[in-house]
Amino acid sequence: MNNTNNIKKKIRAGIIGITGYSGLEVFKILERHPHITSIDLFSSSRAGEHISSSYPMYFDKDYILQEINFAYMEKNLDVLFIATPKGISTKLIEDLKDLDLKIIDLSGDLRLKDQQDIIKWYNIEKPSSQEIRSHIAYGICEFNEKQIATSKIVANTGCYALTSILCLSPLYVKNKHMENALIDKKHVIVDAKSGVSGAGKTPTNTTIYGNVNENFSIYKVSTHQHIPEIEQHLSIISNSEDYQYNQHVQDNKIPAITFAPHLVPMMKGIMVTCHVQLENDGISLEEIHRIYQDQYKNSPFVRIRPLGNFPQTKEVLNTNYCDISLNLDLRTNRLIIVGVIDNLIKGASGNAVQNMNIMFSLPQTSGLKHI
Amino acid sequence: MNNTNNIKKKIRAGIIGITGYSGLEVFKILERHPHITSIDLFSSSRAGEHISSSYPMYFDKDYILQEINFAYMEKNLDVLFIATPKGISTKLIEDLKDLDLKIIDLSGDLRLKDQQDIIKWYNIEKPSSQEIRSHIAYGICEFNEKQIATSKIVANTGCYALTSILCLSPLYVKNKHMENALIDKKHVIVDAKSGVSGAGKTPTNTTIYGNVNENFSIYKVSTHQHIPEIEQHLSIISNSEDYQYNQHVQDNKIPAITFAPHLVPMMKGIMVTCHVQLENDGISLEEIHRIYQDQYKNSPFVRIRPLGNFPQTKEVLNTNYCDISLNLDLRTNRLIIVGVIDNLIKGASGNAVQNMNIMFSLPQTSGLKHI
Amino acid sequence: MNNTNNIKKKIRAGIIGITGYSGLEVFKILERHPHITSIDLFSSSRAGEHISSSYPMYFDKDYILQEINFAYMEKNLDVLFIATPKGISTKLIEDLKDLDLKIIDLSGDLRLKDQQDIIKWYNIEKPSSQEIRSHIAYGICEFNEKQIATSKIVANTGCYALTSILCLSPLYVKNKHMENALIDKKHVIVDAKSGVSGAGKTPTNTTIYGNVNENFSIYKVSTHQHIPEIEQHLSIISNSEDYQYNQHVQDNKIPAITFAPHLVPMMKGIMVTCHVQLENDGISLEEIHRIYQDQYKNSPFVRIRPLGNFPQTKEVLNTNYCDISLNLDLRTNRLIIVGVIDNLIKGASGNAVQNMNIMFSLPQTSGLKHI
Amino acid sequence: MNNTNNIKKKIRAGIIGITGYSGLEVFKILERHPHITSIDLFSSSRAGEHISSSYPMYFDKDYILQEINFAYMEKNLDVLFIATPKGISTKLIEDLKDLDLKIIDLSGDLRLKDQQDIIKWYNIEKPSSQEIRSHIAYGICEFNEKQIATSKIVANTGCYALTSILCLSPLYVKNKHMENALIDKKHVIVDAKSGVSGAGKTPTNTTIYGNVNENFSIYKVSTHQHIPEIEQHLSIISNSEDYQYNQHVQDNKIPAITFAPHLVPMMKGIMVTCHVQLENDGISLEEIHRIYQDQYKNSPFVRIRPLGNFPQTKEVLNTNYCDISLNLDLRTNRLIIVGVIDNLIKGASGNAVQNMNIMFSLPQTSGLKHI
Repeated sequence: MNNTNNIKKKIRAGIIGITGYSGLEVFKILERHPHITSIDLFSSSRAGEHISSSYPMYFDKDYILQEINFAYMEKNLDVLFIATPKGISTKLIEDLKDLDLKIIDLSGDLRLKDQQDIIKWYNIEKPSSQEIRSHIAYGICEFNEKQIATSKIVANTGCYALTSILCLSPLYVKNKHMENALIDKKHVIVDAKSGVSGAGKTPTNTTIYGNVNENFSIYKVSTHQHIPEIEQHLSIISNSEDYQYNQHVQDNKIPAITFAPHLVPMMKGIMVTCHVQLENDGISLEEIHRIYQDQYKNSPFVRIRPLGNFPQTKEVLNTNYCDISLNLDLRTNRLIIVGVIDNLIKGASGNAVQNMNIMFSLPQTSGLKHI
Repeated sequence: MNNTNNIKKKIRAGIIGITGYSGLEVFKILERHPHITSIDLFSSSRAGEHISSSYPMYFDKDYILQEINFAYMEKNLDVLFIATPKGISTKLIEDLKDLDLKIIDLSGDLRLKDQQDIIKWYNIEKPSSQEIRSHIAYGICEFNEKQIATSKIVANTGCYALTSILCLSPLYVKNKHMENALIDKKHVIVDAKSGVSGAGKTPTNTTIYGNVNENFSIYKVSTHQHIPEIEQHLSIISNSEDYQYNQHVQDNKIPAITFAPHLVPMMKGIMVTCHVQLENDGISLEEIHRIYQDQYKNSPFVRIRPLGNFPQTKEVLNTNYCDISLNLDLRTNRLIIVGVIDNLIKGASGNAVQNMNIMFSLPQTSGLKHI
Repeated sequence: MNNTNNIKKKIRAGIIGITGYSGLEVFKILERHPHITSIDLFSSSRAGEHISSSYPMYFDKDYILQEINFAYMEKNLDVLFIATPKGISTKLIEDLKDLDLKIIDLSGDLRLKDQQDIIKWYNIEKPSSQEIRSHIAYGICEFNEKQIATSKIVANTGCYALTSILCLSPLYVKNKHMENALIDKKHVIVDAKSGVSGAGKTPTNTTIYGNVNENFSIYKVSTHQHIPEIEQHLSIISNSEDYQYNQHVQDNKIPAITFAPHLVPMMKGIMVTCHVQLENDGISLEEIHRIYQDQYKNSPFVRIRPLGNFPQTKEVLNTNYCDISLNLDLRTNRLIIVGVIDNLIKGASGNAVQNMNIMFSLPQTSGLKHI
Repeated sequence: MNNTNNIKKKIRAGIIGITGYSGLEVFKILERHPHITSIDLFSSSRAGEHISSSYPMYFDKDYILQEINFAYMEKNLDVLFIATPKGISTKLIEDLKDLDLKIIDLSGDLRLKDQQDIIKWYNIEKPSSQEIRSHIAYGICEFNEKQIATSKIVANTGCYALTSILCLSPLYVKNKHMENALIDKKHVIVDAKSGVSGAGKTPTNTTIYGNVNENFSIYKVSTHQHIPEIEQHLSIISNSEDYQYNQHVQDNKIPAITFAPHLVPMMKGIMVTCHVQLENDGISLEEIHRIYQDQYKNSPFVRIRPLGNFPQTKEVLNTNYCDISLNLDLRTNRLIIVGVIDNLIKGASGNAVQNMNIMFSLPQTSGLKHI
């Protein structure tokens, strides 16, 4: 596709859920996106209000939050971003799926392919049907570009899941390096850390300043809902089209990972520290480093750090990058993979817009290079 | 020992290094300690200055920092705390070891029993001799009370090391539960997180606000100097009196642990998250919980949390507690042990005073219950 | 009173509102107070629960929150601390005032002597009667010791009010220095800054981490409810027994102060910066410094900093001190008075216990010297 | 100027001092600026190093820090930004002033028109000559556009100074509203608060995390070097072309302001709270509000908030806005003016680029609208 055509492509966008952190970030990115010609903001709870009632610094902007109206959406939108709490998009998608517009859902409702997993991990009683799920692309741009490009609905990745997936996938993808197992898949530990914006914007005992500040806590150990999302993806890339990861876990074809998330006293940023056991004593850190560079050589937002150079969350703040570094503990032959992102950008809004770019045949970096 | 005797016991204390975080905290605790009758403060760089030149809020106190003077110390002190940067106590101990007073060293210089380990992990060229080392007690009160009580010199534990040791030791101590190995010692991962006070008080690029605040970073992966301290202790409690842990690691008798320390944007607090693989499918979390409670039933400052109750660093701030909780990931049969401390109290000053209490036959809790 | 008697004095205390920040701090201080023999905890919303349901780190303590029961209180308590949100103690005091026990109220309900002011500044529709108010001592220990000592009910000072009062009062007290006016009372500006714990523990849009962290905001400019509290006190100390400060303000006998409170991204600590215009060109900073030292020479918790030494909030954290410093801008002949406190200690719990000490004829410092 | 021409305008920029906070921010803005075609980075201390030795996250960029070389600069640059510590640009300007390129100095060295003031307030022994100073434009875009547009050298405003000036100037500018004095110029108090990035990036006891975090402090009361910068500007706009503000202060033609700066535990953001005494009882807040709106109606980066809407520093973070709000304390007839900026953007780099835009006849907003 040449540049001239890009210039002409015009996209009319809508957002449901701008009162949350992710929705606001989507809005900010779209406002500067060269192909976006209009943005409609929808809210069920605050319809009719000016945007400044939610964000006082926008007193000089011209946005009124609108009622959710499907007919209006079909007529006036090319793409709709849904950034709502758990359970809402399960309901919305029933109507939205038949409209003539593309949908990018930032919630977790639609990410798991198996209804039973949603019930188990998300505690949603009546999840969307298996039929709907089968048409949804999982929005991990680095591995799923083709399916995203041709899908009407994309389920944007979870923040922890995306970082973990980008860190671990090169060890699972079938390729020449992987003829022999590189790691012992029984011993995959993801020790994850997130800033508090991951917990959303609703005032709760978890998000109050007095409980976050000068505190470090651990939560949802081995029960976090991003676990099946990670395992499902690793299962698929290890085994072609199959996503029956539960069976695979049971059969030890793929790992049941141990996942321990922690809350960091800061606003934004995720680091995951993956500890995996190498099977093969002979492989060098340099070889592994090359495998990772190779894997992501066409992925504009994944950067493999030079060896010895560990990323900090602050270094990717306000960018769409996921930076990854590799370290080998020679005493234990264990590989420590460290990945960092801005959880509201690459972990939510930036990745969502990257998905939009793919869906509309734009360069993946459109509107994202200079956040 | 009865209470009446305690009341009469009078201890004259000295501190070298009050200008650092740990030294200051030792000072604060000693000021309120019921058995301390005098405190002398020593400094090589700031001798002659009033304490308020370092701490303006102490403008109404009567302390002048003094030159280091061994004759004065022998005459006027019963115990001396050394809280100096790497390498200083290596030099001081040459003279101090012959004086008639007890010494508690908060630095890392004297913790490792093997000279070669100091050279390797601490990069100290001329460490204290093997002869000196053989007379020093390692100051982990919960496992080493007898040796501490009878030693003239105690090497206070490192902050990460103490937390990791208290979390892991019940799995290594020889006892009835351990006839059969409980865990697979090849797979012990300690993912550790510390507030920035652990990096000391000297202004550096690491400790500057702009690099700490709203940032989460990882450092010294598998090279941190507390690794041999942890392994040495685990080796000793697994194998009676032997501390040749390097040989043990090579022989796979004890684990080489993987240790990944992280810097948290907060002032104080450490959490270590230990991931260990259970060997025995049959053991229940409740049984493990009992083993831990049993292990520490006489340790006033180690608290095993009820199952399901995870500690946060803030909950032990300004206390001498180490709180530990246990979690079993049933999908992977992996035990996640979480320990939290205040790194400047239980991880330094509080533990140092606890050692002093043992050395002077006081209750371990003397002066420490109400920090 | 001699020491021996003090040792024997035993006080049974109760607290309503331990689930808030101030109530918790009162609890912590009383637990270590040498004269407190028992503590009862009351809660309307959480009666029957173990204290660990509110504070998990207290899983090893023996406290159950109890129903509010006046008969029980009268029989089992000598003093009751009330640390509840606005409006609650207005109701409770109706019954409590007749019981045979002393009461210290940490809320703002009872601080203003004039019913109309409560209605105006606190928006409480039916405040306690003028009759009740006339029997209540205002709990500013440094100026009101006699009345506190003989009162049954004390209204503990507000945090901003206390700091402002301690900073400004030496300029208003009638004494030899004040024969001629020292300052131009038309130009008294209090620019105040507080950590977020002052806003209480309830999760709200104001107290959520995302709105506090890395943010500095201003609120309630010239409408904050501590304004009349400050003016009432200044009016009284300027004019003997009269507290009709509203009339005084109108008559320009005392200043209407300008008060601008700000929210600082930190948990605890208040600084007030008072800007006052000196009337008298001739008075030196040294003279003013002496006036302040003189004023507080018998106040154990007010410290006048040496000239040139400005306090920081961190320097009084976890203490009951109010530190004050003075600075003269020679170019404008304006005096800048800076006061700092820990808002939960001297600004609430510590001052409340100081009041208790006075009420029970204990030394003011009892249980407070070593917080 | 029409758009077509803008598109064609190409500017080659250089930066000295990218290792500091302001220099880095200038770099970030220029990288996205539509008219910048090249950026050269200069450093005396780190010449020859890749940019990633200072900023590891730029490992994939192509910048090498170069020696300062005047011949190279003249040949290859159209504009040079100097973002160095105190005293450096005083030296550099001797050579730079004769080169054929425009210069924007972000330091304080060149802001004051009178040599004696530099000596007094900046403690620079040999400041640039009066001759050099007379050719330098003071870079306050909102009041000095014409002079900036025609000057070769611009002294960019100080962060506190800019905010104070934008808050106060509408009260000083000669215009129809000001025939009668609006405020009593003897009583102008600026109580200012800044995040710690204002103190620079060098690790010191002031900038270390342990001293900033959970702390609020006051410093340089009535001695801060931005005081004469503010007074000089107010003097000029009150009295046409005259900048002898010292004489004016002495003659009471303009105020000697009281300035009290504070350090806030956050990275970025400034708020100034100005307390001024209205002379005229009759003027309403609405009228004053209109005067302010009028003053800045053509200033794209100054926003007057609606009445009742107070800005927070976070609301202008990462923008070039200065938001101002007005509040009238009816009890004291005192006007409280609140201004907020991002100190590294509008307080430094953004304002510097805004100056560049004016110097090159670009729209002021070029490259700045979407930071």
